[in-house]
Amino acid sequence: MSEQRYVGAQSICFAEDIYVLGRAAVVGKKEGNGPLRSFFDEIDETDLFGGENWNDAESRMMQKAASIAIRKAGFTPKQIRMLFAGDLLGQLLASSFGAGEMPIPFLGVYGACSTMGESLLLASMAVGGGFADCAEAVTSSHFASAEKEFRFPLGYGNQRPLAATWTVTGSGALVVGDKTALERSMAQTEGSEKVDADARKNGVEVVISGGTIGRVTDYGVKDKANMGACMAPAAAAVVEAHLRDFHRTPEDYDKIITGDLGKVGAEIFADILGQKGYQVNAVQEDCGLLIYDNELQDTHSGGSGCGCSAVTLAGYLLDKLYEGEWQRILFVPTGALLSPVSANEGSTIPGIAHAVVLERKKGGR
Amino acid sequence: MSEQRYVGAQSICFAEDIYVLGRAAVVGKKEGNGPLRSFFDEIDETDLFGGENWNDAESRMMQKAASIAIRKAGFTPKQIRMLFAGDLLGQLLASSFGAGEMPIPFLGVYGACSTMGESLLLASMAVGGGFADCAEAVTSSHFASAEKEFRFPLGYGNQRPLAATWTVTGSGALVVGDKTALERSMAQTEGSEKVDADARKNGVEVVISGGTIGRVTDYGVKDKANMGACMAPAAAAVVEAHLRDFHRTPEDYDKIITGDLGKVGAEIFADILGQKGYQVNAVQEDCGLLIYDNELQDTHSGGSGCGCSAVTLAGYLLDKLYEGEWQRILFVPTGALLSPVSANEGSTIPGIAHAVVLERKKGGR
Repeated sequence: MSEQRYVGAQSICFAEDIYVLGRAAVVGKKEGNGPLRSFFDEIDETDLFGGENWNDAESRMMQKAASIAIRKAGFTPKQIRMLFAGDLLGQLLASSFGAGEMPIPFLGVYGACSTMGESLLLASMAVGGGFADCAEAVTSSHFASAEKEFRFPLGYGNQRPLAATWTVTGSGALVVGDKTALERSMAQTEGSEKVDADARKNGVEVVISGGTIGRVTDYGVKDKANMGACMAPAAAAVVEAHLRDFHRTPEDYDKIITGDLGKVGAEIFADILGQKGYQVNAVQEDCGLLIYDNELQDTHSGGSGCGCSAVTLAGYLLDKLYEGEWQRILFVPTGALLSPVSANEGSTIPGIAHAVVLERKKGGR
Repeated sequence: MSEQRYVGAQSICFAEDIYVLGRAAVVGKKEGNGPLRSFFDEIDETDLFGGENWNDAESRMMQKAASIAIRKAGFTPKQIRMLFAGDLLGQLLASSFGAGEMPIPFLGVYGACSTMGESLLLASMAVGGGFADCAEAVTSSHFASAEKEFRFPLGYGNQRPLAATWTVTGSGALVVGDKTALERSMAQTEGSEKVDADARKNGVEVVISGGTIGRVTDYGVKDKANMGACMAPAAAAVVEAHLRDFHRTPEDYDKIITGDLGKVGAEIFADILGQKGYQVNAVQEDCGLLIYDNELQDTHSGGSGCGCSAVTLAGYLLDKLYEGEWQRILFVPTGALLSPVSANEGSTIPGIAHAVVLERKKGGR
């Protein structure tokens, strides 16, 4: 029988390390003008990525991120055993068409803006359970395709309330693998000037050591221009479950980084956890607040979308781990489970969030 | 390091058995009037399942199937560690709202009508990898919500071409678990008159022993009224990959059962495999052709939808295994990756399919 790899009520842990082998962040113009500019692999000033329309643009962007991460891991697409991918569009339009160009077994996932958490956990489970030596997680969102899907076409020029977030045009991808894949990745990238190897930097690796799977949480919020408030209870619930399952406190993490709660949601998140006895203010960050300069870029409550946490992780957050600024972080992408239909029917907007532990590990052990 | 549980290019196998512990099929009126009537747990003559609209109806149907399967496994919802669920609606509307009523860590998946294959494989991987002692896979589709999403609202009374399939109103759920969960399930259901135990029937268990994950396959078909033709190449490709990876032939299976290729697609599927040297005609079945009486029920090319293969599996197919009519089957749900947007933009309709091996095992070993 398999070794038990679950703990507490909602969490999983990896007995062996799951290594980050490759990573890529591809973004649009606005994100490229933001404070994380230097952490991205590619910035497309046209937001079109060579596509014919916004959906096509998103598919191409996603495919580009997936391909760059595979290349930086030193692999070819055929060496990736499973691709976990998702986006915000109905029927995963961007991922399905993007994945169609790649010869990789495909598993579509949907968790709204929490999708990077879900796909990264599933890819890690595939590797940790022995079902793949390496697997990839990739998610995307595009401002223009999301506005068309959920709100109003850009041409309408409608106004946005201050609680609204700005959907990130970006796709983030991570290739994860086991020890054997790590060694192959090192061998295949070593000495190659063409490949900027990701698997080991500054003599360290980054590993995924566990995670907590969230439940759908519905506080009855109905305002689709205030998704931070819809998602904050789900984020707080999964962080609380995580800390309880692993017998940890917020101080065990250098940072606890939510996906895209934005200004409004991040405050609610800290408040709820505070009421439960967990003070997170000192370690709290939010990808939606990191990705734009809210004063200069007029994004109101911050960034959002499947791409928001994905590109922030693949770029900025992992860099901080490799550089040693942080030793261990809890990455908590958050999703608002609304659809255009449910929103127009006046339904509530349930939230979901998943938590992933990423930590720095001295290489060569 | 984990034991290697992958084989060939696209397949996975389970070293230890993954047991089917509970199962449920909940359907609407038309399905209840079809040839599989006696295999369903619940039939709602109103198709509304107590809901206020078609989306709500689908959520309630999904929740009902998930709950019945858990009860028949002898468990409570809190004992299920992960719920893998998906449906056809944009942003997984039915699953998200259905899952919101249940206290189970939730992972949304999307593979169009192949979703039962994907969610069942992921649930089995979660158990087989040691990340859960038991997990649930549930998918749903609803004729009325799907017509509204993809074609025309019912009130328009539009005509359907002969190649079109009929979206099944149904939700199928399977609880799967490891040996420990099997023993607990047996203990919790034994002697209880209220629980119609699923885990062991006629002294046998049904186990999931492996599977093959499909790639997105695009033959350039654009006709959304002929989804069988879109999906058949993907189904043939995954079956070919499966037989190659496991060094098997079609004769190693009592049945190879595709999801919802329908009449048109099933012929294309057999033709493609024939050209590759695999004769499947003798063992081929299609859930879309099993679920309705096409002569009496006027469904043209057969049934389709995430619910089609799910209820056929949870009801009819598993019964045949427990009863000993079949020893081993290959269950191959098939999906057409179209969205209303992609279809209206004139895009092709890529297909995907996943293969799951289910086999009968004498109990008590």
